[in-house]
Parts: sequence; C-alpha cells; structure tokens
Amino acid sequence: MGTRRGGDLASLPVEIEGAAYHAVDLFDGGAVQGLIEQVRPTHLLHFAWNATPGIYQTTPENFRWVAASLALLEIFHGAGGERVVMAGSCAEYDWSVARVCHEFDTQLATDGGRAGTPYATAKIALQKMIDSYGRQEGLSTAWGRIFFQYGPYEHPDRLVASVITALLEGREAACSPGQQTRGFLHAADIGDAFAALLDSDVAGPVNVGDDRPVTIAELVNAIGDIIGRPELVRLGKRPTPANEPQLLLPDLRRLHDEVGWRSERRLRDGLEDVVAWWRDNQGTKSG
Amino acid sequence: MGTRRGGDLASLPVEIEGAAYHAVDLFDGGAVQGLIEQVRPTHLLHFAWNATPGIYQTTPENFRWVAASLALLEIFHGAGGERVVMAGSCAEYDWSVARVCHEFDTQLATDGGRAGTPYATAKIALQKMIDSYGRQEGLSTAWGRIFFQYGPYEHPDRLVASVITALLEGREAACSPGQQTRGFLHAADIGDAFAALLDSDVAGPVNVGDDRPVTIAELVNAIGDIIGRPELVRLGKRPTPANEPQLLLPDLRRLHDEVGWRSERRLRDGLEDVVAWWRDNQGTKSG
Repeated sequence: MGTRRGGDLASLPVEIEGAAYHAVDLFDGGAVQGLIEQVRPTHLLHFAWNATPGIYQTTPENFRWVAASLALLEIFHGAGGERVVMAGSCAEYDWSVARVCHEFDTQLATDGGRAGTPYATAKIALQKMIDSYGRQEGLSTAWGRIFFQYGPYEHPDRLVASVITALLEGREAACSPGQQTRGFLHAADIGDAFAALLDSDVAGPVNVGDDRPVTIAELVNAIGDIIGRPELVRLGKRPTPANEPQLLLPDLRRLHDEVGWRSERRLRDGLEDVVAWWRDNQGTKSG
Repeated sequence: MGTRRGGDLASLPVEIEGAAYHAVDLFDGGAVQGLIEQVRPTHLLHFAWNATPGIYQTTPENFRWVAASLALLEIFHGAGGERVVMAGSCAEYDWSVARVCHEFDTQLATDGGRAGTPYATAKIALQKMIDSYGRQEGLSTAWGRIFFQYGPYEHPDRLVASVITALLEGREAACSPGQQTRGFLHAADIGDAFAALLDSDVAGPVNVGDDRPVTIAELVNAIGDIIGRPELVRLGKRPTPANEPQLLLPDLRRLHDEVGWRSERRLRDGLEDVVAWWRDNQGTKSG
C-alpha cells in the first residue's frame, strides 16, 4: 500500500487489470483505520517513505514515517492481517566497513553507538520493531533491504535516469570516475522479488538487489553505447562522492535460497528497456 | 514531563515547592503541542512508558510510546527546546552475554538480528532515533539507561516493595535462592542522577544505576534484618527466573566521569529509609 498525499489517483503510473486502488494518507491514523477495516487485507506491502534524492537521508520526516508505519502495522494486525513486508535499504549497513552485505553478519550503521543518518537510523529502528512486534503478536513479517536499482519512472536526479535523459537530449553526462563497484536491479525485478517475499513465510531482513558486480563506469558507458552517444559520457568530471565504499553488494543467499527468487534479467537488457521507456516518455514528469 | 492518562493531578505523590504541574496525555499530539507551546520548556526529562510489572516487557503499547516520544521530541524542538533526556533501561543490553554493561561496548538485545522483547526493542530503537534526530537538528540529547532500583512508591509487585510489605504484615516472603549479583540504586538517587544528566551536555546513552555488587540474598536478608523478621525471608522457595544472568552491573564511568555524578548513599541506609516509608504508608496505593 502506497500513499500519495492529496490522493491523486489519476497520477498513478500504471493501472493493473483486476487491481483495486484506494488512496489514503498514512499520516492520518483515523483514515488508515477506516480503509483497512473496509478492505480487510490479508497481506501488506509497505513502501511509503521520504526517498527524495538530496533530502531523504537527513530529513526528520522519516521519523514520522516510523510512527506512521507502526500505526499501520497495528491497525493491519487488528483487522486480521496475516503477513507484512516493509521496505528497508542497503543504507542500513555500516558503509565504512561493509563490502558484501549479509543481513545478520554485517555491522549496521547504528551498531556500537555509531551515529547513523536519520534515514538509516529510522529504517534500522523500524525493522527491529516490526520484527519484535510480529514475534510478540503472532504476525508474520519480513523486511526487504533494497540495494541499487534503476527503471522507468525513476526520479530524474538519480544516476541512471539522469544519464539517459542527458544523452537523449544531446547533453553531456558529467560523472565521477565511476570506479565503485555495485549491483543494479531493474525496478520490475525489485517489485517481483518483493511479491515473492510477501508470498513466502521468510522472516526478518532480506537483501533485495543484484549481486553481479559492475562498476559505475561500466554502467554509464553501457548507457552511452545503447543510446549511441558514448562521447557524451564524461567520466571524472565530478568528484567521487564522500563516504562511497569501493565495493557494496548484497549477499543474496536468503533471497535466492529461502525466498527462492532470482533475477534472470541481464543488466544490458534492463538498460535497453529503460532507454526505450525514456525515448517514449521524454519530458514525462517522473519520480 | 510525565503523563497520567485522565490527568488526576491530585494523585501526584509529592508536591514540590516552586514547581508548576501540568497534566497532558502524551498520546494526544494536539494537546502536547498546545501545552509545550504554552510552557515553552528549555529542558525535557521524559520518563513516561508502560512499565507495569508482568506486562511491560511484552506489551505492544510500548511501540506506541516510541511514536509518542518521537512526536514529543519534535514538538519540543519546534518550540525552542534545547536539551532532552529520556529514560532507557538495562534491558537494552543482551543479557545472554552482558556482565558489566558498557554503553557502547556491550552487545544490545537486538544486535546481529537477535529478537529482543518489545520493551527492549522499543527502547533501543528510540535511543538510536533521538540520538540521530538530535545530531541532525542541533538538539542536545541523552539517554539514561536505568538499572535496578528501589524506593518509596514502588509498585508492590516489585522485589524490594514486595518483601518489605510482606514482612511488615508478618507474612513470609518467598524468594528465589538469590545468588544473582546486581546493584541497587535508591529512586531518589535515580532522580538526582537524571537531573545531573539533564544539566550536563553529555550525549548518548549513559548508565544510571549502582555498581556496588550485592546478591539478591544479601539484599532481602538486609530487609529481614532491618524489619527484625529475618525468619520470614524464605530463600529458595521460588525458582530463579529464567534468563537471569548471574552478574549484571552497570559500567558507570560515563556517569561518574563525564556527568560527574556519584551516589553517596549506602544500600543499608537506603533500605532503612524505604522500610520507614512503608511503615508510615502501609496500605498506600503505590506503583
């Protein structure tokens, strides 16, 4: 269940045959209570949060999202809900030591009294609370920690979208040297993995991402190649962002072996899909 | 600031000369906003929580207290508040490994994907969030982790109060063998330590307790001795509670050296004080 404050259903990007849409402001506990009691859902996927690039890591609004998420959890459980999956982030891991991140073995950003960003701290706190709430109340819960992604409708300030739109408009894409290694999962696969996680009874945090390593340079050069404007990709025109670990990948054993989900999509195919989407939707207000 | 739902100010145990009392329901965000904007406090000590013996460790109500505490924090900060201290607990430490608990070095109950009780989980989550909120927003915060305590007005189901009232009524006090080692701090000292913490600029978690080791057997035998009915103390009549570590004490270096506070009260003196209080208030509704 997502929320759009103001509830403009007409702006939903995709209508899915057979799906019913209801808009609700998750900061309005009474409205949430009313909707949940009307719909009485058995399964809940909760993604709403402040994830606006440039803001999301530091805004205290995400502490309000913790409170709103706990309220949603309690209302859902009270109305007979059975299974909850909420969205976490690779930002929960301590990037100063993380390399291949394992859900239980890798240090978290707030472990040992470390100061996490408001975003990481709020996500870590909510994960632990829904886990504890679920065990206590007999409610099945899990938490998908989303790693790096790309896809249609992406916010234009994010990496893949910004490079594609620049190149399609014939502008230079100023990038860092791009020697950091990551894995990128198509948003459709993120959704598919979360659906599989929701359908499973796996509990606790589960990494959701791609573990096939690619450097940022390889990623953006692939976009330049697909669009046919490789000369517009300008590696090294920007500094490497501070606090960027050299290697950050998800350990996907829980997703592969316990949930039984695995991406079959090659990064090149996914990027071609997204470039085609931007060609068709250039100028589309996204995010 | 405490809360009493229903706001019965007449039941406040002690009126302090020069202090002004205001009652507010901390679950009513609008009422909290109104009160804080009226009073505009610069310093906030927040203790309210569900701590009812037999219930507090598992009730999901304490997740609502996390949300209410975050809302209070934001309102206080928005109204010009400067310094916040909230109350945590030694239950935040992982009792399966803890012995002498250090604020940053000792494993917490939810570290490494461990399942904490709702109480421990909620306290840990809130501590990390107020720390992160404070750093981000420039608000000075700290968190007092309360260890074992005793004092007047104690809930009659808690250890010291239950033994004293039994002996004063000439009833047997059925205890465990009592070989666990703890430290006990008088409630007046807990209050004094929190006042010192609030007046300091020390940040983050700070243990508040007594680090002078005493076994439960020594504690209850001292009560029997003070009341003059040692034969009513029946050690070993109850089993030792499950998951009780042999040794659990606070590391008090932060409290002693950074806050500069130290208890001067001997346990024997404190127990005599509390026995005298119960003699004067036998039958008093406490808790």
